[in-house]
Amino acid sequence: MTFKLIKTDEKCAARVGELTTPHGKIQTPVFMPVGTKATVKGLTPQMVYDCGAQIVLGNTYHLNLRPGSEIIKDLGGIQKFSGIDLPCLTDSGGFQVFSLSGLNKVTDEGVEFKSHLDGSKHFFSPERSIEIQNNLGADIIMAFDECPPHPCERSDLESSLKRTHAWAKRSKDAHLASGNWDKQQLFGIVQGGIHEDMRRMSVEAIEELDFPGNAIGGVSVGEGPELLREIVSFTAPMMNPNKPRYLMGVGRPEDLLDCVEMGIDMFDCVMPTRNARNNYLFTSEGQVRMRNAVHAKSDIPLDANCDCYTCKNFSRAYLHHLVKADEMLAPILLSLHNIHFYCKLMSQAREHIIIGDFMSWKADFLNRIKAN
Amino acid sequence: MTFKLIKTDEKCAARVGELTTPHGKIQTPVFMPVGTKATVKGLTPQMVYDCGAQIVLGNTYHLNLRPGSEIIKDLGGIQKFSGIDLPCLTDSGGFQVFSLSGLNKVTDEGVEFKSHLDGSKHFFSPERSIEIQNNLGADIIMAFDECPPHPCERSDLESSLKRTHAWAKRSKDAHLASGNWDKQQLFGIVQGGIHEDMRRMSVEAIEELDFPGNAIGGVSVGEGPELLREIVSFTAPMMNPNKPRYLMGVGRPEDLLDCVEMGIDMFDCVMPTRNARNNYLFTSEGQVRMRNAVHAKSDIPLDANCDCYTCKNFSRAYLHHLVKADEMLAPILLSLHNIHFYCKLMSQAREHIIIGDFMSWKADFLNRIKAN
Repeated sequence: MTFKLIKTDEKCAARVGELTTPHGKIQTPVFMPVGTKATVKGLTPQMVYDCGAQIVLGNTYHLNLRPGSEIIKDLGGIQKFSGIDLPCLTDSGGFQVFSLSGLNKVTDEGVEFKSHLDGSKHFFSPERSIEIQNNLGADIIMAFDECPPHPCERSDLESSLKRTHAWAKRSKDAHLASGNWDKQQLFGIVQGGIHEDMRRMSVEAIEELDFPGNAIGGVSVGEGPELLREIVSFTAPMMNPNKPRYLMGVGRPEDLLDCVEMGIDMFDCVMPTRNARNNYLFTSEGQVRMRNAVHAKSDIPLDANCDCYTCKNFSRAYLHHLVKADEMLAPILLSLHNIHFYCKLMSQAREHIIIGDFMSWKADFLNRIKAN
Repeated sequence: MTFKLIKTDEKCAARVGELTTPHGKIQTPVFMPVGTKATVKGLTPQMVYDCGAQIVLGNTYHLNLRPGSEIIKDLGGIQKFSGIDLPCLTDSGGFQVFSLSGLNKVTDEGVEFKSHLDGSKHFFSPERSIEIQNNLGADIIMAFDECPPHPCERSDLESSLKRTHAWAKRSKDAHLASGNWDKQQLFGIVQGGIHEDMRRMSVEAIEELDFPGNAIGGVSVGEGPELLREIVSFTAPMMNPNKPRYLMGVGRPEDLLDCVEMGIDMFDCVMPTRNARNNYLFTSEGQVRMRNAVHAKSDIPLDANCDCYTCKNFSRAYLHHLVKADEMLAPILLSLHNIHFYCKLMSQAREHIIIGDFMSWKADFLNRIKAN
């Protein structure tokens, strides 16, 4: 086992754990900054470290199209290529194939799609996804799944679920055959939409394959915060508590804390970096729009409770000026802050689970960010 | 005197000096990275330090329009505002008023112009330029001068020169009256186009005002590298050798070295940052276009002789990937390298002037960059 449970909260399902990978140990719950194209947008690797990131996510779909996974393999794998000397997780490309590319044909064999870059034709199967992820060489890789749209007819969801489970088995077989089983942990993905019975069916099928970790997929698009909580509330308890549980593509700080409470260990989301590029910041006192003229003469830091490079060195007036002047330093400093905020939020959660006051700390935290 | 000559080369006019400012000492010859809008484009202050920068330039024209010099004054001046804790120099705004804005009317009193941002009307005079520069609070500020176009009729140049000299006197008077004379060193600017006799006339008029430092203006636009060398070759020797000589807006690495040889002490240029954003890099082996497909699989650093963060941590293949993927990290890492390259070039020049082999080192350096 590479996952060790350190403490579970007495009043809820929140827990602290430690996940061991070839590139180091990860303390959970953990937020994984998204480095789609082998870079966390706007941040140097040093900045990523300074934010407190423990692991970075890369996107198989994007890296396969550009620069190509063989190039990354030849250059020593994703960590050496990107210069980010941290554990890395790659997704399977499934989500992007279904949401971003031009879909040509989906069969039990796999998915034929057109590149969103140049319209060129590509084919992803569980075997090809694993091959690409083997090339990229991340510490944690994901089974190739089908991502049905939401809403989706129940009958369509049932056949999609069958395909996802068959693809999970083929992903495992391909990874076993690759010789990389011990170097790269393959996680399974639970689908099943908004239906408790179908999530249960999916958990059972995925757990049977005995992956070293399991993910909840299909909750990040379109469901909204209430449905997200509902799905996680009935799905997480079904999942093996001795393995890491990864909730894919979620979400806002309050979503993360609610899901930590329900026993989720791992998160990723583009929100901190994407929102930062739109000058939308997360702080301990709630959200801040840096473009707002109210900041033009403000000598205070973005977040007085934050010890990131941005908050320690610059005034809101300066950050506002950079935004208005469309200077590159704006998305750099603001992305740095948002990523730091997410990483620190998870480190605080771990700390409060350990000392035993997670629920009251969380209530205080949510009250503060909602008051503003 | 705030400028101390440490050594002058025996075979040429190159010299090493030390310029003392309220924010620290500067070793010359020095390259000053341009931070037009109170940020060196794409670099955090920490990166600017790590590049070896000793002083940063800010633009009065831009900062006056946005965020406004009064805001920067209220927030403690340009260093505190930008977070760049280094000596700072601001230009007078003259060059931008004549090259960038919509000119309405130029009289002996000053220049009426339209903002390039919103078309709003503004008026710069020597007194207003000094007032703005007093507000910004840089360690070195510049007299307000007229920047005639090139080419320019001799008779037009003569009347422009008279105006520049009258404005230099008014700049000095305004700065004396401000009470900031000791906190901010005011440099004069020599104009006179391509004509030796007019440059001499200008040097005499400017030297008579006894500024603590003197600049050569009007050589960076349109003249080309040969004329640039010619102008500097006859102008620099006319200038007081006991004061720093600043060549404004120049240039390529080879231009800098040739002008160091002719006794220039200070340089600024947007070239390293602007070229970096166009993926055009300066290296010890000559120029490199990072977009070129030849780098797609290249495992070597951008410059094997460079110890900047970019060259120590990333392959050309990765930098090429970032460029092709239009990732923000590309202009960040490439700007960092180019600025580091310029700063290191000047530090090497100082070192070789001190040890006495500047001319042979320079010849070797130029041979290497021209061979590729």
